[in-house]
Amino acid sequence: MSEAWREERDSLGVVRVAADALWGAQTQRSLQYFAIGSEIMPMELIHALAEIKGAAALVNAELGLLPPELAAAIAKAAAEVAAGRWDAHFPLRIWQTGSGTQSNMNVNEVIANLVNERFGTPRGSKRPVHPNDHVNLGQSSNDVFPTAMHLAVLRRLHEHFLPRLEGLCAGLEARASEFAGILKIGRTHLMDAVPLTLGQEFSAYAHQLRQGEEALRASIPGLSAVALGGTAVGTGLNTHPDFARLVCARLEQDTGLPLRPAENPFAALAGHEALATVSAALRNLAMSAMKMANDIRWMGSGPRAGLGELALPENEPGSSIMPGKVNPTQAEALTMVCVQVFGNDAAVAFAASQGQFELNVFKPVIVSNVLRSLQLLGDALDSFAHHCLEGLQPRREVLDRHLHRSLMLVTALAPRLGYEKAAAVAQYAHQHDLDLQSAVLALGYLEPDEARELLQPERMLEPASGEIPEKSESHPLLATKRKPS
Amino acid sequence: MSEAWREERDSLGVVRVAADALWGAQTQRSLQYFAIGSEIMPMELIHALAEIKGAAALVNAELGLLPPELAAAIAKAAAEVAAGRWDAHFPLRIWQTGSGTQSNMNVNEVIANLVNERFGTPRGSKRPVHPNDHVNLGQSSNDVFPTAMHLAVLRRLHEHFLPRLEGLCAGLEARASEFAGILKIGRTHLMDAVPLTLGQEFSAYAHQLRQGEEALRASIPGLSAVALGGTAVGTGLNTHPDFARLVCARLEQDTGLPLRPAENPFAALAGHEALATVSAALRNLAMSAMKMANDIRWMGSGPRAGLGELALPENEPGSSIMPGKVNPTQAEALTMVCVQVFGNDAAVAFAASQGQFELNVFKPVIVSNVLRSLQLLGDALDSFAHHCLEGLQPRREVLDRHLHRSLMLVTALAPRLGYEKAAAVAQYAHQHDLDLQSAVLALGYLEPDEARELLQPERMLEPASGEIPEKSESHPLLATKRKPS
Amino acid sequence: MSEAWREERDSLGVVRVAADALWGAQTQRSLQYFAIGSEIMPMELIHALAEIKGAAALVNAELGLLPPELAAAIAKAAAEVAAGRWDAHFPLRIWQTGSGTQSNMNVNEVIANLVNERFGTPRGSKRPVHPNDHVNLGQSSNDVFPTAMHLAVLRRLHEHFLPRLEGLCAGLEARASEFAGILKIGRTHLMDAVPLTLGQEFSAYAHQLRQGEEALRASIPGLSAVALGGTAVGTGLNTHPDFARLVCARLEQDTGLPLRPAENPFAALAGHEALATVSAALRNLAMSAMKMANDIRWMGSGPRAGLGELALPENEPGSSIMPGKVNPTQAEALTMVCVQVFGNDAAVAFAASQGQFELNVFKPVIVSNVLRSLQLLGDALDSFAHHCLEGLQPRREVLDRHLHRSLMLVTALAPRLGYEKAAAVAQYAHQHDLDLQSAVLALGYLEPDEARELLQPERMLEPASGEIPEKSESHPLLATKRKPS
Amino acid sequence: MSEAWREERDSLGVVRVAADALWGAQTQRSLQYFAIGSEIMPMELIHALAEIKGAAALVNAELGLLPPELAAAIAKAAAEVAAGRWDAHFPLRIWQTGSGTQSNMNVNEVIANLVNERFGTPRGSKRPVHPNDHVNLGQSSNDVFPTAMHLAVLRRLHEHFLPRLEGLCAGLEARASEFAGILKIGRTHLMDAVPLTLGQEFSAYAHQLRQGEEALRASIPGLSAVALGGTAVGTGLNTHPDFARLVCARLEQDTGLPLRPAENPFAALAGHEALATVSAALRNLAMSAMKMANDIRWMGSGPRAGLGELALPENEPGSSIMPGKVNPTQAEALTMVCVQVFGNDAAVAFAASQGQFELNVFKPVIVSNVLRSLQLLGDALDSFAHHCLEGLQPRREVLDRHLHRSLMLVTALAPRLGYEKAAAVAQYAHQHDLDLQSAVLALGYLEPDEARELLQPERMLEPASGEIPEKSESHPLLATKRKPS
Repeated sequence: MSEAWREERDSLGVVRVAADALWGAQTQRSLQYFAIGSEIMPMELIHALAEIKGAAALVNAELGLLPPELAAAIAKAAAEVAAGRWDAHFPLRIWQTGSGTQSNMNVNEVIANLVNERFGTPRGSKRPVHPNDHVNLGQSSNDVFPTAMHLAVLRRLHEHFLPRLEGLCAGLEARASEFAGILKIGRTHLMDAVPLTLGQEFSAYAHQLRQGEEALRASIPGLSAVALGGTAVGTGLNTHPDFARLVCARLEQDTGLPLRPAENPFAALAGHEALATVSAALRNLAMSAMKMANDIRWMGSGPRAGLGELALPENEPGSSIMPGKVNPTQAEALTMVCVQVFGNDAAVAFAASQGQFELNVFKPVIVSNVLRSLQLLGDALDSFAHHCLEGLQPRREVLDRHLHRSLMLVTALAPRLGYEKAAAVAQYAHQHDLDLQSAVLALGYLEPDEARELLQPERMLEPASGEIPEKSESHPLLATKRKPS
Repeated sequence: MSEAWREERDSLGVVRVAADALWGAQTQRSLQYFAIGSEIMPMELIHALAEIKGAAALVNAELGLLPPELAAAIAKAAAEVAAGRWDAHFPLRIWQTGSGTQSNMNVNEVIANLVNERFGTPRGSKRPVHPNDHVNLGQSSNDVFPTAMHLAVLRRLHEHFLPRLEGLCAGLEARASEFAGILKIGRTHLMDAVPLTLGQEFSAYAHQLRQGEEALRASIPGLSAVALGGTAVGTGLNTHPDFARLVCARLEQDTGLPLRPAENPFAALAGHEALATVSAALRNLAMSAMKMANDIRWMGSGPRAGLGELALPENEPGSSIMPGKVNPTQAEALTMVCVQVFGNDAAVAFAASQGQFELNVFKPVIVSNVLRSLQLLGDALDSFAHHCLEGLQPRREVLDRHLHRSLMLVTALAPRLGYEKAAAVAQYAHQHDLDLQSAVLALGYLEPDEARELLQPERMLEPASGEIPEKSESHPLLATKRKPS
Repeated sequence: MSEAWREERDSLGVVRVAADALWGAQTQRSLQYFAIGSEIMPMELIHALAEIKGAAALVNAELGLLPPELAAAIAKAAAEVAAGRWDAHFPLRIWQTGSGTQSNMNVNEVIANLVNERFGTPRGSKRPVHPNDHVNLGQSSNDVFPTAMHLAVLRRLHEHFLPRLEGLCAGLEARASEFAGILKIGRTHLMDAVPLTLGQEFSAYAHQLRQGEEALRASIPGLSAVALGGTAVGTGLNTHPDFARLVCARLEQDTGLPLRPAENPFAALAGHEALATVSAALRNLAMSAMKMANDIRWMGSGPRAGLGELALPENEPGSSIMPGKVNPTQAEALTMVCVQVFGNDAAVAFAASQGQFELNVFKPVIVSNVLRSLQLLGDALDSFAHHCLEGLQPRREVLDRHLHRSLMLVTALAPRLGYEKAAAVAQYAHQHDLDLQSAVLALGYLEPDEARELLQPERMLEPASGEIPEKSESHPLLATKRKPS
Repeated sequence: MSEAWREERDSLGVVRVAADALWGAQTQRSLQYFAIGSEIMPMELIHALAEIKGAAALVNAELGLLPPELAAAIAKAAAEVAAGRWDAHFPLRIWQTGSGTQSNMNVNEVIANLVNERFGTPRGSKRPVHPNDHVNLGQSSNDVFPTAMHLAVLRRLHEHFLPRLEGLCAGLEARASEFAGILKIGRTHLMDAVPLTLGQEFSAYAHQLRQGEEALRASIPGLSAVALGGTAVGTGLNTHPDFARLVCARLEQDTGLPLRPAENPFAALAGHEALATVSAALRNLAMSAMKMANDIRWMGSGPRAGLGELALPENEPGSSIMPGKVNPTQAEALTMVCVQVFGNDAAVAFAASQGQFELNVFKPVIVSNVLRSLQLLGDALDSFAHHCLEGLQPRREVLDRHLHRSLMLVTALAPRLGYEKAAAVAQYAHQHDLDLQSAVLALGYLEPDEARELLQPERMLEPASGEIPEKSESHPLLATKRKPS
C-alpha cells in the first residue's frame, strides 16, 4: 500500500488509514495492535464471510430491512470479495481478537467502501452504506464469524479434502485387487508370521482410511448447523426471526453445501464441538495414513539391506552426498504432515475447551488449524497417491524368498500336531537352519506328502474347517470328538 | 500367593509357578519380565476375554471341533472368570507384550487349570484341556485380544458412561427449564454483553454435551465390528469359516451388546480406528464439560469479591487455613478429569498411529486409556450432576444487579439510532457513571418513553422484526426503505 | 517465474527448469512432486544454510580442498543468499523429503548458478562449481541441514525471542514495583481468600515466566552442538577431520552465536533432543503466559458485571453489534498463540520420537514448528507488553471494595481464636450479611480494639511471629506453651 | 473398614465416620463426594506430606509455637505415616479438590487422631491436638501440598528414576564399546547408506538419553524450591518468618534431598513450572527411548524375513497361535510406556496452564501424572536394560552380508570421481545386479587396486583428509587446486 493516507473515525476516535486501502479504521487498528507473526487469516474464511454478507444483504432486503438497491450493491461487492478479487485488502493476522471481530469488520469495511465508491461517496464516508448498520445488519461477529468458519470448512472438505481422500482410497483398493494373487509373509511384532497376500495388506490400508472417512462424513451434519441468527450472545437480538433461515437457504443454493441455523445458537457461539469433531476425525485419518506410509516405506527399504519387497518410484535423487540413493520421500512428506495434523488437533481441542460464558474467543486459532489440516493432509494424501502408490511395484522374487524361508508357516501344523509339537518343529528348524518341511520330517511328526500339503502358503489365506489336534486324543475325553461339520 | 511352587513347562522350557496360582508358565514369565509399575491389565478386559472364551468353546463344540463335555466345562470356568470370581489370578501388568498375548494366555491358562482340576488332573497338566489347543481354539491373541478390547469398551460405554452422561444432560436440561425466566447479563470476551436467561445459558451446556454424545454414539457401529475370525494376521488361518459369526451371535445374545465380525479383519488387527474414534469423542466431551464446569465455578465465585451469581452447594470446608471458605470442588475434580482425558486421548492416538504391518502392538496402552477415560469421566460427570448441579441456586439479587447496571443493553438502541450514536450513549454513560436511560436522555437521542421501552432486557431475549436505523435516512438511497414484513 | 525453460540433468535424468530460475534440476523435481500446501521452508533456515555454505567453502579452501578463487566466489554468493537477496529462488515446501535434502540442494544449486554465471558459464552448467562436489563439499544434507536448524533457531532465539521475553518480564517487574502498595483480595479456587498486594500478584507472573526463561536458556548449550562433520550417517565420511571445528569457529565469529561440533554426531543426525528441549521450554512459557493473560483479562472483566479490578487499554472497538464494547483483545491474541505453541510442541515431540537408525526424517516439520513458536510467542508477548500491560490501570475503588467486603480476612483471627471459632465468625457474617468486625463482636469473641487491630489487611501481607490459639489451652498439655521467640 | 461409626463435626456440621478409621470428618466428606474412579492419591505424596508435618511440628516447637511434648508426639505419628504404617487410612481419590486440601486434611486428621489416642482422648476429639490448629500449624494446603508434590517427585527422581536411567545409559555405553569393531550398513530414510559400526549406533542411543538426563537434572533446582511459607496465597499469613527455612533445613537433613523456600511463593502456589519442566524432560526421554527401542526391535526383526541383524533374548513364547514365535516384547512394553508418558505430559502441561489468581487447582492431576511417568518410565527402562539390552547379540553373518551387498559404499568414490560418475556406478550396479567393484571396473572409471582400496568399509568410519574430485579439473579454475594439508 502507498504511504499516502486518509483519516477515518470509529467509536474510539480517529485513525490514519493508507489512502489506497479499501479497509477502514477498525482494520487499521488491528494491523497496528496485532503485529504477530506473518500468517494472515485464511483467505477461505474471508471469502466465506463475504458470501454470507452478500446473502444477508439480499435477505435483509427481502425482509424489508434494507433498500433493494443497496442490498444489490452490497451483494455485488461481496461476490467480488468472495471470488478473491480484493484479497490484498484483507491483511489481518490470525492472532487478533478471539472472536474474529476484526476480520469481520475488515469485510464489512471493504464491502462498504466498494459500494460507497460506486455510489460516488469517498472511502471512509460510511454512506450510503455503513459497515455496521448495513453490511453487518442482522449479524454480530459472534454469529457470523463462526458461521463463516463452518462454511469455509465445509467447502474445503467437500471441494478439496474428500475427493483427495477418495482418490487415495480408490487407488489403494485398485492396487489391492491387482495384488490379490501375490503371496507374502505376514509380520506381527515385526517378526515373521503366517502368510497373506499383498492385496490383503493393501486392502487394510484402504479400510483403515475408509473408517476415518466415515467418521469425517459423520461430522458434516454438525458443520451444517451454523450460529447465524444468534447475533451477540445467542438470543438473536437485533435480527429478524426469519433472517438466519433465509440466509442459510440462499447460501445453500449458492454453494451447494448443506446449511441450517443451529438448534441451540447459544452453544454455537460458546463452543466449537463440530469443528473439534472434524479436527479429531482428521487426526485419526492422519493416524491411519501414518501406518500405511510407514509400512510402505519399510517394504520399500533397501534396496539390498532392507526388506526390499516393494520398488518405490524413483522421483528424485535422494542424497546430496550418497550418489545413486533414492528415498521414500513421499512417505516422508506424508508422515510429516500427519505429525502436523496431530499438533493442529491438539491446538484445536485445547482452544475449544477454553470458551467462557457466551463466547469462545479462540475462533481464529481453531479455524486456521482445521483449514490447515484439511489443506495439508488433502494435498499430502493426493501426492502420495500419485507419486508413490501409483508407481510402486512388488519385487516378486524378494516376496517369494521371504515367504518360503519363514518358519511361521508352522502354524498351519498346529491344528494337526498341537501347539507344542508345532513349536518344537519351528525351533528345530531354527536351530538347524532348516526349512520347515525338512524339520518336520527329521522329527518324524508327519509323512512327506502331508507335510508338503499342509505347508503350502496358498492354503493359509483364509479360514478353513479345522480339526482338533491329534495329540489331544491322549485324554479319554478327547476321544469322543465328532468330525467337523 | 504362597511361596510353594510347582514346575511348569512351555515351548521355551521350565518355569516355576506359585503352587496356589491358577495361572501357568506363560503368565509366570510375564510376571518376571514385566515388573513395570503396579497397574494391572483392567479387569473389565480380562472379563471380556473370558466371556469370549466361553462362547468360543461352545461354538467350537457346535462346529464339531471340541468335545461338548470339554466345551461345557470351559464355558463354565470362563463364566466364573467373567463374573470376577478369580480376579486375583490375573496379576499381569498393562506394560507387557503389545499384543496382549500374555494376558490372553493368562486367561487361557487359568481356564484350563480350572477345568483340568475339575476333571481331576493337576494344575499345569494341560490335560484334558490345553490352554492353546482348546481354550484358544480358533483364536489368536491377535484377534481375540482386540475383540475383548471392543467388548469391554462397549460394555463400559453402555453400562457405565452413557447413563451418567445422560443423567448430567437431563439434569442440565431440567435446570435450564427451571431457570427459563431468570434474566442475567451475557458475557462475551468476559465483558458485559447483552442479556439472556440463565436457562438459555444452561441449555447451551446441555447442547454442547449432547453434540458430544452424538459423536460418541456414532462410534458404536465401529466398536461392534470385531477382529475375531482373523486369527494371527487377518486371514483366519486355523479357524472355522463360521466361527467368528457364531461367536459374535452368541456374545450378542449373552451381553445384549451389538457385535459382528469386522468387514476387513486385516485392518482390525493392524489398526484401532474404532477405539481412537471413541477416545476422540471422549476428549471432546471433556472439552465441553470443561467449559461448563469453568462457567459454573466462575458464576459461583465470591461470595463477595467474585461474580457471585450462583450459590454452589457447600459440601465440605474448603481450606485448612481459611476458616469458613467453601470451594467449587466438584468443578475442580471434573476439570482435572477432563485434563486427564485429554492426556489419555493423546496417548491413544499416538499409539494407534504406530501399527506395523499386520499388527498394532500398542493394544494394552490403547485399551487401558480408553477404559480409564470412560470410568473417570463417567464418574466425574455423575458426581458433578449430583453434588454440584442439583444443589446450585441462582442468587437473584446479584443477577439482577449485574443485569441492570450493564451498559451493553445499548445494543438494543442500535437498530433505532445506528451503531455510532448507540456507541456514544454507552461511552457517555461509562464516563459519567450513569445508567443508559439517563445517558440517552442527557444526549437527547430519545424520548423517555421510547428509551424505557427499548431498554427493557426482557425484550432482548429473542430475534425481533427490526428496522434499519433512522440516521441512514440521511442518504437518499435509504429513504426508500420498505416497512419490515 | 517466466514460462521459458531450460533443460537440466541430474543423476536420474533430464528435467525442465524455468529459464529465469536460479535453482536446478533437483529443486525442480521437488516443486513438481511436493505440491503440498502453500507453506514454504522458513527463510531463516535457507539463510542459515547459506551462511554455512559460505563458511564451508572458505574452510575447504583453507584445508586445500577447494581453489581459493572458487571458495571466495561461493562465499560471496552464499552471503547474498543469507542476506535475503535471492529469497524468490527458494520456493520449496516444508513438506518434502524429511532430511531437508531438497532444500539443501536448492541452496547448493542457487549458489552454484550464481557463481557459474559470474564465471561466465550458463545456469545449469555445473562448472566450474558443481552443487554437490563444491558447494556441498565436506557436507551431507544429513549433517548440514540439522546444523542449519540449530543455527536458525539459535539466531531467532537470541535476536528475536529472548529480547521480547525479557521485555515482558521487565515490564511485569516494573508494574509489580509500581503496584507494591495496592492491596487487593486474594483468590484461591476463584473464591475470596486472604489479601495480598497487586504488586505481589504481578511479581508472580514475572517469576513464572522467569522460570521458563531459565529453562529455555538451559537449552542453548544443546543447540550449540551441531551435526556438522557427521556427513551422511555420523562417521564423517568424505569430510576433513578439521572441517566441522573450523566451520563452527568461523560461523561463531560471523554470527556471534556459540557453535561447536556435537560430541556424538550419530545422535545429532538421528535425534533432535536439543530442539525438542527448546520446544518444550516454549510450551512451558506459553503455559505460564496463558495463566497471566487469563488473570489479567479476568481482572479487567466488566466493566460493571465482572471483577472490574483493572482497566485495560481501549485499543479498538470490541463488537460489530454491541456499541461501546471494549474487549481484552491482547490477552485473546496471546492465549490463542499459547494454544498454538502447545500444538506445535506436540508435533515436534511426536516427530522427534520417530527417528530410524541413522536419521530422523522429520527435520522440516520439527524446525518449522520451533521457528513458528519462537516467532509467534515472541511477537505475542511483545504485543501484550506494549498494548496491554503498559497501559493497564488498577481501579482502586473496586479493589478496595472487594478487599474490605471479604470474609476471608477471618483467617487472621485463627491463630487467636482457633480454626473453628474463626470459621464460626465467617459463617455468622455470611448468614447475617455483616462485615467481620461486626460478626466477631456480635459473637463476643474479641474486644473491639483487638478485632480492629487483627483485621487490618495491611497486617496480612507477610509472615508474622504468630502464637497458638488460646482455645488450645483448654488442654493441660497446651498450657505449657512458651512465648514465641 | 467396619460398619460401626462415630460422629464427627467440622465447620459445616456433623459427619458419620467409620469407627475404626483414623481419619476424620473432612476426609469422610471427600470419600462421599468424590467417588470418581478407583485411583487413590499416590502414597508417595501422602508420605511426603507426613514428613513435612513432622518437621513442621518440631520447627514450631523450636519457635515456641507448639508445646514440645505435642510436637514430639506429632513428629512420631508423622514418621509412622511417612513410613507407610497407616497407608490404609488414606483412601482419598486423586480426583478431589484441586488444591489437595482434602488429602492434606486426611493427613492432619490421621496424625491428630494417632496423637490424641496416645494421649488418651478418643478419635475425633481434636484434643489436645487439633488437625488444623496444630498439625497444620504455620501451613495451608496451598503451600504444604505443593511442597509435598516437589518432595515426592524429588525423592522418586533420585531414588528410583535416575538410577534406572543411569543403568540403561551405562549398559548402552558398555555395549557400544563391546560392538566398536562390528561394521554394519548405515540406514538413512530406511535405505541403505554408508557404513558405521554397531558400537557407533549404540553410542548414539546412549547419547540421546544422556541429553535427556541432562535436561532432567537441570530441573532439580526448580524442584528444590518449595512453596512452604506461603500459606494461603503466598504472603505467609499466619506463619512464622523463619518457619519455611527451618522446615526445609530439617527436611533436607532427614531426606538428603535439596530443599529451600521458593524465592517467589506466590508463583509457587499459582503455577507449577518446575513440575512441568520435569514432565517435559520425561517426555523427551520417552521420545529418545522410543527411537532406541524401535531401532532395536527392527534390527531384531525376522528371524528370516526381517533385518535380522540382532538376536534378541527369547524371554517368552510370543504367540498363542504361532508356535515357536518370539517377539521383541521388552521393546513393546517400553514403547507403550513412552506413549503413556507423552499422554501424561500433555495432561500436566494443560493442567499447569489453568491456574487462576493465587492458586492452580489442578495439583493432584499434575503430581499424579509426574509420579506415574517417573515410575513407569523408570521401570520400563530398567526392564529393557536387563531383559533386552543385556542379552541381545549381533548376528555377524547378517551384518556382514548387508554391509557388503550395499551400493552406498559408492559414496567413498565421490571425492575421487565426483558425485555424478559415482551415481552412475551405483545405478549401473543396481541395474545389472553387480557389486560396486565390478560396476566401477565395468565402467572403466578406476583400476582394480584403487577400487578395492577405496571401497573398503573400514575406511569409511571417520573423517579423512579428502581431495576434490578429479573431474572438476576439467575447468581451468580447478586446475589450481593445492594438495590437501
